[in-house]
Amino acid sequence: MGESSVEKLIPKVSLTDTFWSQYQDIVKKNMIPYQWQALNDQLPDAEPSHAIENFRIAAGESDGEFYGMIFQDSDVAKWLEAVAFSLETEANPELERLADEVIDLIGRAQRSDGYLNTYYTVKEPEKRWTNLKDNHELYCAGHLIEAAVAYYKATGKETFLHIMSKYADYIDTVFGEEEGKLSGYPGHQEIELALVKLYDVTGNENYLKLSKYFIDERGKQPHYFDIEKNKRQNTESWNEDTYAYHQAHQPVREQSEAVGHAVRAVYMYTAMADLAAKTNDESLKAACKRLWENVTRKQMYVTGGMGSMVAGEAFSFNYDLPNDLSYTETCASIGLVFWANRMLNLEANSDYADIMELALYNGTISGMDLDGKKFFYVNPLEVLPEASEKRPDKRHVKPVRQSWFGCACCPPNLARLIASIGHYIYSQKDNDLFVHLYMGNETAFDIEDVHVAVKQKTDYPWDGKVVINIDPDREHLFSMAFRIPGWAKGTQIKINGERLDQQALTKDGYVYIKRQWKKNDQVELNFPMVAERIYSNPQVRHNVGKVAIKRGPVVYCLEQADNGENLHAIKLPRSAELTAQFEGSLLNGVVVITADAVRIDENQWDQALYQATSVQTVPNPIKAIPYYAWCNREQGEMLVWINEA
Amino acid sequence: MGESSVEKLIPKVSLTDTFWSQYQDIVKKNMIPYQWQALNDQLPDAEPSHAIENFRIAAGESDGEFYGMIFQDSDVAKWLEAVAFSLETEANPELERLADEVIDLIGRAQRSDGYLNTYYTVKEPEKRWTNLKDNHELYCAGHLIEAAVAYYKATGKETFLHIMSKYADYIDTVFGEEEGKLSGYPGHQEIELALVKLYDVTGNENYLKLSKYFIDERGKQPHYFDIEKNKRQNTESWNEDTYAYHQAHQPVREQSEAVGHAVRAVYMYTAMADLAAKTNDESLKAACKRLWENVTRKQMYVTGGMGSMVAGEAFSFNYDLPNDLSYTETCASIGLVFWANRMLNLEANSDYADIMELALYNGTISGMDLDGKKFFYVNPLEVLPEASEKRPDKRHVKPVRQSWFGCACCPPNLARLIASIGHYIYSQKDNDLFVHLYMGNETAFDIEDVHVAVKQKTDYPWDGKVVINIDPDREHLFSMAFRIPGWAKGTQIKINGERLDQQALTKDGYVYIKRQWKKNDQVELNFPMVAERIYSNPQVRHNVGKVAIKRGPVVYCLEQADNGENLHAIKLPRSAELTAQFEGSLLNGVVVITADAVRIDENQWDQALYQATSVQTVPNPIKAIPYYAWCNREQGEMLVWINEA
Repeated sequence: MGESSVEKLIPKVSLTDTFWSQYQDIVKKNMIPYQWQALNDQLPDAEPSHAIENFRIAAGESDGEFYGMIFQDSDVAKWLEAVAFSLETEANPELERLADEVIDLIGRAQRSDGYLNTYYTVKEPEKRWTNLKDNHELYCAGHLIEAAVAYYKATGKETFLHIMSKYADYIDTVFGEEEGKLSGYPGHQEIELALVKLYDVTGNENYLKLSKYFIDERGKQPHYFDIEKNKRQNTESWNEDTYAYHQAHQPVREQSEAVGHAVRAVYMYTAMADLAAKTNDESLKAACKRLWENVTRKQMYVTGGMGSMVAGEAFSFNYDLPNDLSYTETCASIGLVFWANRMLNLEANSDYADIMELALYNGTISGMDLDGKKFFYVNPLEVLPEASEKRPDKRHVKPVRQSWFGCACCPPNLARLIASIGHYIYSQKDNDLFVHLYMGNETAFDIEDVHVAVKQKTDYPWDGKVVINIDPDREHLFSMAFRIPGWAKGTQIKINGERLDQQALTKDGYVYIKRQWKKNDQVELNFPMVAERIYSNPQVRHNVGKVAIKRGPVVYCLEQADNGENLHAIKLPRSAELTAQFEGSLLNGVVVITADAVRIDENQWDQALYQATSVQTVPNPIKAIPYYAWCNREQGEMLVWINEA
Repeated sequence: MGESSVEKLIPKVSLTDTFWSQYQDIVKKNMIPYQWQALNDQLPDAEPSHAIENFRIAAGESDGEFYGMIFQDSDVAKWLEAVAFSLETEANPELERLADEVIDLIGRAQRSDGYLNTYYTVKEPEKRWTNLKDNHELYCAGHLIEAAVAYYKATGKETFLHIMSKYADYIDTVFGEEEGKLSGYPGHQEIELALVKLYDVTGNENYLKLSKYFIDERGKQPHYFDIEKNKRQNTESWNEDTYAYHQAHQPVREQSEAVGHAVRAVYMYTAMADLAAKTNDESLKAACKRLWENVTRKQMYVTGGMGSMVAGEAFSFNYDLPNDLSYTETCASIGLVFWANRMLNLEANSDYADIMELALYNGTISGMDLDGKKFFYVNPLEVLPEASEKRPDKRHVKPVRQSWFGCACCPPNLARLIASIGHYIYSQKDNDLFVHLYMGNETAFDIEDVHVAVKQKTDYPWDGKVVINIDPDREHLFSMAFRIPGWAKGTQIKINGERLDQQALTKDGYVYIKRQWKKNDQVELNFPMVAERIYSNPQVRHNVGKVAIKRGPVVYCLEQADNGENLHAIKLPRSAELTAQFEGSLLNGVVVITADAVRIDENQWDQALYQATSVQTVPNPIKAIPYYAWCNREQGEMLVWINEA
């Protein structure tokens, strides 16, 4: 296979980080085995998945009917991708054997022309590509391609990559501008970013071109979704919202505002950023930057959550961020991590890494409990269990995490993200080595012909001290660029014990240290981690008069378990000191924030619903825990945005 | 026809009130003629009603199919009732002739056994009474009965009353405990309160018993809705929520919490209070009081609105009163007026009249524009037009009133309420004459054999001075009881110019003045009307840190037309003086409230969505208008609960 023609592949990273190692262990010990059981219908309490069986049927090795969602194949893909990332960090021959068997099965389920989709193969072989809008064929292909690339990079084995290259080659014969090809694009974006990955490992430019084709075709008039609908003689009617749901309301280069299904949107933006970087496409880059600004300045929750409404699991409109109605799907925050990562490839600006870090420590991992056994689709910023139970308009907001879902989208997506967390720490551009995230790990880079071992030590996210050892096998001139987190005020940097005046070296949030790096060099970064109050832009009507608590990258919340019922009656005075303290026995070890808040004295209020006098507040100490760790004790209320006194 | 055996009928009241006369004129000049056109499909822009045509078809005088909602007959009933109330206050021979023709048509549509429902007569004559839960037969009967009683009382003509008595007699043969009768009750309560009215004018106790039967049968096990469903061999499944939607989850005497469809609930509570009063039924009275306390202390908006969710147009749970998601149907507030009126008959306590007044000046008339041409079903306390447009979960919250609806429930309900507003001012119990509401009017009562003319003069709701002339045709000893509104602090009362020390005379919010009333006696009441801040019980999480403005019975709101966009950025300091001033040229003449508020300075905020520092506020004078009058200028935001500084 060819090397990437554009950028160095990310090197393997061994995690030594306490925080993320816990999560990676959960993925290895719980999630991958559990999901394997799910895929094979071995879970007594869960709806059957049938995903592996679907491949057996498609391969002609089992009788029976296709069963499951039309995108059931993607569950197998996500499992394989998580397995690949896991093998990358730790060998596991038994697991690898299992994966090889599944890959062989997938190969046998592939049609001779390369086509590979169990639903259509089993159920409607004559209807391939007749409903791109709803039927997720290209979406499943994308996930399988991503898995194949990951498996190749983890194991060096090429079987899966060949299978998926063959499928991609076939897809390339189906779609395109040429006479006789379909001028379509997927209803659920995903293959676009996968084809870029396939290009990266194969060097085959057709994949890059096909990805770009899907991106550029989107939103053109007449709408392809209408064209294929008419071909199907379907009379379903839809309106402009339907196109917006799929981000197909305009050509993507003209889009300036994030609309529609949040996961589809960020997967697409990820591919757009990839393509812009790899093809130096300025207008695509401009669109990416406009959309990034729109999302992160107008449509993102403070946790890195996106999608403020359940209808369409979608963006609503600028500054509309209700805390009790949000959808904020785990997968959307995961997609935001992908997108931020690609924006960093496009240009080194710490804004992207700040948001990536925000989503990683908050809106993504809030999607699972600390045991990795229960999951949220929806990550609300405010929960009242009675409202979730009694109000249909809040029924999507679950007050407790659920076991594996029938539509198993978020849990395996979390598994693959966590298993590959090491990929997001560094990037290398020419001779510049970027450090975007801080977490304990060991890795190495080749800078020209010099091998540079890099080792990070830190108690992040609880402590802002980071020690990085840079160990070239011989002295060499190159730049290392360290991100200064946006939340850090008064950062101090030392090189081999000597204070560095980083002011002049800082550009777009990165401190560039260009020097003759030599053996045993050590950089110490001190990012003061202070619990601080966060306010919303006054245009966010839901958060006026409210304050959130954040310390370093971690957003905090109040839970009923610590603070009693009716969390809204609590008011945090602006003058109250926020005190941070590590509690090793709580929630696998977290820094909690306490403060002398007050509470509206409900006891002073008689039975009236309304009265002309308000009541006094009484002292009420509060204890806030990291948002990601909520809902790991008894069920109860939760609140991120606290009323301010 | 017999006289009421239980209570005096309310005497005719001639309105001289500026405020309500405007509304009554609108009903006479606009709504009744407009609705007549609607019923006859003469409105070019509206969906055809077909309601009159349905009666023609049922009478065999026209060919064609039934068209419209299954409860289309009730539109004709509500029109006739509004006509009756209107004729009661002002003769209109042409209108009366029209009504007589409709009544004759209704008579001709009646089956020989008394049955009267155009849907079943035309469409499914063999399926009468097979789906009480959904199909509104008894609901339509109830509205027709109410109309017949009103028409009889207004005109003395008995035709309609005979038609409806015949129908009621027939219904009495269908439902009851006796062998062969159905043990059912309506899915939409209404006939229960109507049968009490029919009993009042006819003295026929069967109607009272039948009403009581429907009330007592409700909620018994096994559920009648299940029994009839099984008979229909229907396999639709429903759960406990379905019974609660219809208030049939428990026997009504055991109910303590308002649940389900708000209009159904309050219509039922109205009948319960009626029955409790007329039969001295203590356990029913206790249930009424429990439910009253629950609604008014835990589930009512500050405007007298009820129903905090669109799903089921229903109550949700205690203290759940979101301002931007409410249903707060106009008809529910109208029903609250009915219920409060009946609670006053049960016991003289100003709590009931306070709520009745609150609903009348706020949550009911907010349902129409000042021209009576456009209407709200939903009366929200907070509107952002973009949210209504873009969020399906807020689509029920219309930012502008709509023309006549396909399901024409609220507008004709408003018409009949306004046309009969005079009925709610007074009540007479034995020799006690109660004054519940203050508005300009002239009327007269017979107390024993003495004729007492009563005349009120006031500029209510803008001024709290009320002058009441009591003019018995000869000196006579009796009590007059004047309500002291709950909002009035420091009320002064004079009799013939002399201050009265009312303290000792006050019981449950009424000042009882028992004396030898003589010709030209004059009582002057002065209720200080001061603009004041209203706070919510701290259990109402949506209103913590917020304040509403109220003056006398009128609740205020901020509109974009006066205060610009993003009303949430406005904060009203606790120390800011609220200044009231009458503006004769604004919104047909209203008292506006101005104050020196502040506003979060959006200009100080850069583009970030979140930041660690908040911004200062800047002075921002505000102008609040009466809530009922909102949305009579250009479309824009509206807000009742204002952030407090």
